[in-house]
Amino acid sequence: MLNYDNQNGWPNQLGNYQSPIDLNTEVSTKYDDNLAISSDMYYQLTQEINDSTTIRLLGHGNATIFNRKFTFQQLHFHLPSEHTIDGKTNPLEIHLVHTNAIGQTVVVAIMVNKGNSNADLQAIINHFNNKEDQSVNISTNQWIPSLAKGFHYLGSLTTPPLTEGVEWLVITNSQITVSDNQLAWFHKNFTHNNRKTQPLFERKIEWYK
Amino acid sequence: MLNYDNQNGWPNQLGNYQSPIDLNTEVSTKYDDNLAISSDMYYQLTQEINDSTTIRLLGHGNATIFNRKFTFQQLHFHLPSEHTIDGKTNPLEIHLVHTNAIGQTVVVAIMVNKGNSNADLQAIINHFNNKEDQSVNISTNQWIPSLAKGFHYLGSLTTPPLTEGVEWLVITNSQITVSDNQLAWFHKNFTHNNRKTQPLFERKIEWYK
Repeated sequence: MLNYDNQNGWPNQLGNYQSPIDLNTEVSTKYDDNLAISSDMYYQLTQEINDSTTIRLLGHGNATIFNRKFTFQQLHFHLPSEHTIDGKTNPLEIHLVHTNAIGQTVVVAIMVNKGNSNADLQAIINHFNNKEDQSVNISTNQWIPSLAKGFHYLGSLTTPPLTEGVEWLVITNSQITVSDNQLAWFHKNFTHNNRKTQPLFERKIEWYK
Repeated sequence: MLNYDNQNGWPNQLGNYQSPIDLNTEVSTKYDDNLAISSDMYYQLTQEINDSTTIRLLGHGNATIFNRKFTFQQLHFHLPSEHTIDGKTNPLEIHLVHTNAIGQTVVVAIMVNKGNSNADLQAIINHFNNKEDQSVNISTNQWIPSLAKGFHYLGSLTTPPLTEGVEWLVITNSQITVSDNQLAWFHKNFTHNNRKTQPLFERKIEWYK
């Protein structure tokens, strides 16, 4: 029986809803529909920060995500991807972090395939240096598709403090591709920075395919 | 620098977004509007469980909460209230727990004032016994107002595992009241079961007044 006179002794067993995960299409609930996200065509990036393990860019933008208003806060890069799809890794995954008025977090993750050099990525590479807090003027040109496909599930931040209650949209049909040269640049400047995939436990994954 | 080769050593500093809290109207963001919740007029309660520290009732019902579909899972009682409003405690607080397709949790908390005996509460009292899992057929008649007023913020479960990422709607204008006799019955059968209020930290509270 729960002892309300010894509340400091209560167990705090957080940690069963962690990210990233393997997005297993077999166990996902399938929808012939798009992910419910509509965003500004351009997010404006204003600061570029060397986080040692990754590049982080702060900026502005608005999105409506599953019918709620969110504002874009920052984006950063993971190589290779943190999420896997049926065990398969992408060379690059971009996290666009959004929050709303009460502090809920939605991370829009973009799974990037190899292909042509992307101009926005190249601008970020070109502006990169070791200064902590560099002003930039770069926009993300339609990184989030107007008809987005992919996955929706509940997890956590993938870096400490690993806070849970984070909602994930993992987008699989973005137009962004990364070239061999761009990837080589990332790997030269950063080591691998993908957290291992975490157990799904009893969570449900939605797949908008 | 974050060591991706020693991920087990990462700090996991969860615990800054806990519930309940004191709902301080001075620091709340004020809206001349209703809380965005519309629910079935009646939730159907099907099982009544003696949890030792409280009564828990399982059942069925649907709600649209800040534009997303949720289903009612269970309700239970805290006496006195867990949330406080400008430091003031209510004699009873009812938690209606809702979840959605990806496992997000919204708790609709009803702050109950003293007044007339409520018939639904009396049905719950009348059916109460010590059996673990008693079938009942009780409905909650418009416990959630069609034009709900109150607070909206991000917190946690108030009992272990104290999971965070829980969205709270604390309703202050429900028609339910609890009589002195009903309160006396609760206090005879249960000890106080309110978790202490937790620090707000940098969280924002919305007040729909």
